[in-house]
Amino acid sequence: MRLIEGGVTAARGFLAGGVPAGVKPGADKPDLAMIYSEHVCTAAAVFTKNLVKGAPILVSQEHLRNGRAQAVIANSGNANTANADGLEKAIRMAKIAGEVLDIRPDDVLVASTGVIGRSLPIEPIENAAQALADSLSPEGSAAAAQAIMTTDTVRKEAAVELELGGKTVRIGGISKGSGMIHPNMATMLCFVTTDCAISAQMLHKAIVRAADLSFHRITVDGDSSTNDTFAVLANGLAGNPLITGEDEDFESFVEGLTAVCLRLAKMMAGDGEGATKLIVCRVEGAKDADTANTVSKAIVGSALVKAAIFGEDANFGRVLCALGYAGAAVDVSRVSGGFSSAAGEIETCRNGFMFAFDEEKAAKVLHEKEITIAVNLHDGEQSAEAYGCDLTYDYVKINGDYRT
Amino acid sequence: MRLIEGGVTAARGFLAGGVPAGVKPGADKPDLAMIYSEHVCTAAAVFTKNLVKGAPILVSQEHLRNGRAQAVIANSGNANTANADGLEKAIRMAKIAGEVLDIRPDDVLVASTGVIGRSLPIEPIENAAQALADSLSPEGSAAAAQAIMTTDTVRKEAAVELELGGKTVRIGGISKGSGMIHPNMATMLCFVTTDCAISAQMLHKAIVRAADLSFHRITVDGDSSTNDTFAVLANGLAGNPLITGEDEDFESFVEGLTAVCLRLAKMMAGDGEGATKLIVCRVEGAKDADTANTVSKAIVGSALVKAAIFGEDANFGRVLCALGYAGAAVDVSRVSGGFSSAAGEIETCRNGFMFAFDEEKAAKVLHEKEITIAVNLHDGEQSAEAYGCDLTYDYVKINGDYRT
Repeated sequence: MRLIEGGVTAARGFLAGGVPAGVKPGADKPDLAMIYSEHVCTAAAVFTKNLVKGAPILVSQEHLRNGRAQAVIANSGNANTANADGLEKAIRMAKIAGEVLDIRPDDVLVASTGVIGRSLPIEPIENAAQALADSLSPEGSAAAAQAIMTTDTVRKEAAVELELGGKTVRIGGISKGSGMIHPNMATMLCFVTTDCAISAQMLHKAIVRAADLSFHRITVDGDSSTNDTFAVLANGLAGNPLITGEDEDFESFVEGLTAVCLRLAKMMAGDGEGATKLIVCRVEGAKDADTANTVSKAIVGSALVKAAIFGEDANFGRVLCALGYAGAAVDVSRVSGGFSSAAGEIETCRNGFMFAFDEEKAAKVLHEKEITIAVNLHDGEQSAEAYGCDLTYDYVKINGDYRT
Repeated sequence: MRLIEGGVTAARGFLAGGVPAGVKPGADKPDLAMIYSEHVCTAAAVFTKNLVKGAPILVSQEHLRNGRAQAVIANSGNANTANADGLEKAIRMAKIAGEVLDIRPDDVLVASTGVIGRSLPIEPIENAAQALADSLSPEGSAAAAQAIMTTDTVRKEAAVELELGGKTVRIGGISKGSGMIHPNMATMLCFVTTDCAISAQMLHKAIVRAADLSFHRITVDGDSSTNDTFAVLANGLAGNPLITGEDEDFESFVEGLTAVCLRLAKMMAGDGEGATKLIVCRVEGAKDADTANTVSKAIVGSALVKAAIFGEDANFGRVLCALGYAGAAVDVSRVSGGFSSAAGEIETCRNGFMFAFDEEKAAKVLHEKEITIAVNLHDGEQSAEAYGCDLTYDYVKINGDYRT
């Protein structure tokens, strides 16, 4: 398996595009995206666990019941959530896409992201639909990635290539993240396409595993959104032997899908609202995987740890504090750890006690853009990583008045 | 029961004081506090649930095993936590206090708050101890309250008076809060004294109930600290019939204690690090108390809700979102709610759907210092309140470089 250029159109037979439709009055950024496969695909998706679900999710869930799909339409600027007319509008979006693409509306997945509780204006989408379909191209991944961005500052695309049964299979995707990202997949949209031949059932199994190792390990602010969607379309054009069970090919596919998702997830964590740094927390020596997961997520989710990393302050006391309230049974007296980055590493804690360290070196380590918090529990063989970002003035600024 | 002036010396027979000892090198604010009862007290305390516990907590727990205490010594500027010599220093603090007060060291409770993982300098405490004892007075509550403050901006004292068996009983306390406050009592110190006659066992029952209705309902940033301590000393000087069971007098005492704690808790929430507003979330119509608690705490703890309140943005979508991920089984389609304050109230959501509202009026409502988020689940009779604060630039600033 190797990383390749491109995103949601890296796999054969997929087109994508994005246009400015004006969903959010006054805004002129691209805000309407489309992904289209020339052939009907097997498809699967996972959605937010929030009890408040955006209307588009209800429509996409219904359309996925037959395990197939051929296109995705997605808008930014309005989440189409908690509105009395939300369902009607989401159904209409699928219909509009079906019309301009000449496919069945129930082969269209729908997604929306943006402000909650404002009626979605359907006219801009209706008016832009033909231009959107006309914009579809094998080079359209970037335009689609751009159109789903909200407060993201960086376009997110990733793709890999691998061999299955002598055939080259490609997997690529786009995503948007930023605020409200949390282990339970909060407002992120991620669309992945692949030319792999795989049954809908196995595709679903694959995305659950990939999401668990990627999107569920990132957190920006602890809020789980109403509209998270991670959908994969597979059109089978690679010509590999159809994957129908948990065989070697399936494992390779999961590995490739996970690589794409992890790359997108890290980009989302590093591009959290207002973020200046990507924080990786690596927990080793855990007695079981659950402990490693729980502890790593608690640390990377701690507002005080995040603020300290923003301030480039090697305050391992806050790491210990987060470890202590994580809810896992940890023997604190065995814990060791410190910080590392491209500029080196520094140990600050052994046997649960902190000790004096070279503050000058620590300042250099923490001055980098990607900071690893290393924790060893000295209690077993399991490890886990979680990903987050620092807490900054800009996070507060961005979220202080998001609706206007 | 009625609120009265004063704090930890409101009850008969208690003295308090505070002096600048220089625990944190270079700082000259008062940082060493003492509370002293002329008679030995029954005593009880609850401590943080964080697995990483400050050394002072271990000492206080040991000293409370006989259910009695006569004094408290507490410092700010250093948490005496996660240091190899922490226990030794905490034991030494109790001994120093015992010496200058001429009481048994194991009748002294110890508490520390401040930076984690830096060895506590004991000399400043040793040198200041006699001056601290000399400063003790029935008017010393404010000085003690001042000395335990870290990033707090407001001194916190509260007291009540009630009648028990024809006698006047007083209950009063001081506390410090600010950052790291969370339902599980994060870095808060609270010391309450009372002249009520009550057994150690019943005193413990009373503080568990009072904490549950006050300190466990506040959150600033979701981090639970290593050093939380809520301790109560009761010297019996009021001369009321000794409370030894869950009778009417006990209920009245719990009510009074809860009133003191709730007042202190709200002051802590409103004075959260960098906070400009107190947020009260009132959840009504819940099918059970757990649901009301869970939902109210999730809403008041949401970074996005907190940032919106800071920006005076009536973004009820974020309230709905937090309600949805709270983890309680809620029928979203019944939810109604809105915002209120001294400037009026505004409804923004009914049957789970948001609707257009008077933005001008909403701006006025949210411009106040104390904002109530009202949520009705329309699913039963239970209700709960939780308390928090807005998320501001200053929170990030304060926590970006706390150690220096």
